[in-house]
Amino acid sequence: MDVRDGPVLVLQRIRTLLETLITDEQIDRLSIRGMGIGIPGPVEFRSGEPVSPPIMPGWHRFRVRAFFENAYACPVYVDNDVNVLALGERWAGLGQGFNDSLFVKVGTGIGCGIISGGRIYRGADGSAGDIGHISVTDDDVVCRCGNVGCLEAVAGGAALSRIAQEAAQRKKSTALREMLKERGELSASDLSGAIERGDPVATRIIREAGARIGRTLAGLVNFYNPQLIVLGGGVVQTGNLFLASIREAVYRRSLPLATAHLVIQESVLGDRAGVIGAAAMVLEELLHIDPLNAQGKFGARAYGVFDTETRSQESYTA
Amino acid sequence: MDVRDGPVLVLQRIRTLLETLITDEQIDRLSIRGMGIGIPGPVEFRSGEPVSPPIMPGWHRFRVRAFFENAYACPVYVDNDVNVLALGERWAGLGQGFNDSLFVKVGTGIGCGIISGGRIYRGADGSAGDIGHISVTDDDVVCRCGNVGCLEAVAGGAALSRIAQEAAQRKKSTALREMLKERGELSASDLSGAIERGDPVATRIIREAGARIGRTLAGLVNFYNPQLIVLGGGVVQTGNLFLASIREAVYRRSLPLATAHLVIQESVLGDRAGVIGAAAMVLEELLHIDPLNAQGKFGARAYGVFDTETRSQESYTA
Repeated sequence: MDVRDGPVLVLQRIRTLLETLITDEQIDRLSIRGMGIGIPGPVEFRSGEPVSPPIMPGWHRFRVRAFFENAYACPVYVDNDVNVLALGERWAGLGQGFNDSLFVKVGTGIGCGIISGGRIYRGADGSAGDIGHISVTDDDVVCRCGNVGCLEAVAGGAALSRIAQEAAQRKKSTALREMLKERGELSASDLSGAIERGDPVATRIIREAGARIGRTLAGLVNFYNPQLIVLGGGVVQTGNLFLASIREAVYRRSLPLATAHLVIQESVLGDRAGVIGAAAMVLEELLHIDPLNAQGKFGARAYGVFDTETRSQESYTA
Repeated sequence: MDVRDGPVLVLQRIRTLLETLITDEQIDRLSIRGMGIGIPGPVEFRSGEPVSPPIMPGWHRFRVRAFFENAYACPVYVDNDVNVLALGERWAGLGQGFNDSLFVKVGTGIGCGIISGGRIYRGADGSAGDIGHISVTDDDVVCRCGNVGCLEAVAGGAALSRIAQEAAQRKKSTALREMLKERGELSASDLSGAIERGDPVATRIIREAGARIGRTLAGLVNFYNPQLIVLGGGVVQTGNLFLASIREAVYRRSLPLATAHLVIQESVLGDRAGVIGAAAMVLEELLHIDPLNAQGKFGARAYGVFDTETRSQESYTA
């Protein structure tokens, strides 16, 4: 699905998929007690509505919550996708046991979910964690947000794809040039393919992007002093060099006291963090379950939703 | 007093002053229920000990809490001075009613106190808010922390003093040159004196420093989405141009959603924020009073400590 098709088409499609799931799995509609939804853009959590999401034309103030609440007669919670991912990591991934942590997603764009005192921190207007548009360079690279020099515009997945294609077109890299000829376009993962073939230009591009992100995170480490940073998203999955470059820059540019116990790791949940996080959001909001005290009867495992081996029905219905 | 005299001399001096106060004001020792202390460096809040404070040689791991607890037989709370200032603003200054706010102090150094959900946020190791050492330039300006290109090293009070003296010595500014001849050295407040005399070099120096701080705060606004930023400290008091330059950079470089309701103001409490904050810290920690619900019987005013008109005894004893 493409979110640019607009909310009506996309949400109708999701509803159709839900109906198929309910029929195929013979789910009792009354057992659907709540729904959790993540959206790739800023969301006003209170109303469950996207607010001027840059990559989602037509979605501004669309009543996503109301759409599903009307259809399923259960409470619906809508949040930014990176917050949902951070919550998933908090409940069932590397974030378990960490009260102050960051989840950084480097995909097409760059975003950050903030855990403060064990809970999602959303800020005054729900836009907290929007680190992709922090200014990192005086170069006049125009960002999709309209500003120049944003982190996302020089180190996000879309930027890497553009930089790789430029390098190929300018004949700076034979490996990238061959790949571009073959496929017609290049993505961030093609860079890791070129690195595996020993291409120095691709290596430099990934290293520089990692260093840019790392320097930005170093500043946030000084400010926020988290115990843990989990990195996820498509670009992070391209290989170890990217992660190593980020790590190196964070440890070099942060204060010693702030990095003494800091852990920086790649997400182990991967794509499943979103499903788990959406379910966790419902549990937290609807049942007021606190992950800090989620043990025994009210623990995550007691609900069976976060069993990473056997996916139970609840993981879909919630 | 100079903190560089070391903890023994400084704390003994403070004790002598306290004893004088107790005698002069005829304070009943048993009425001293707690003490709050702010220190210009990183503090491990749990133990009440400074941890490698850059401008306080000899203070590392000195048992400040124990020193006063032994002398006065009451609970003692020790925190970073900027956190204490932020708490003062939260209880009795501009921060009243704001749950997610920042207090930024620009003095000799630059620091930030973070209020999250109405409480001081200290981070994993107590170093949260140490924004003075965020890397802001590739220039190799050495900072007192040992790193290069730190915000504090290009825009803090000590840096402004150095930059002003260089401008005077290199004969770039007549006004600064004359001031340097008169006084032998220049401070940040001399820059505002030169600005009043219409000096373009001093104007540029203050403008650039404000813009540097503003660009850094813009990144933190994107990340943290606060409702309020309160600016305090000696350099902020030098004049409107500095504050205007900071504001301009924050609003220009932050996301529209994050600045829609953002308020940026100069502290109204000034030097009194520290005394109030130290008292508030004791109330919060000892009596578990929540500023969010501090009304009526348990409200700040009920204790008389934050009455800004008449300073009651309690404001000293607490």
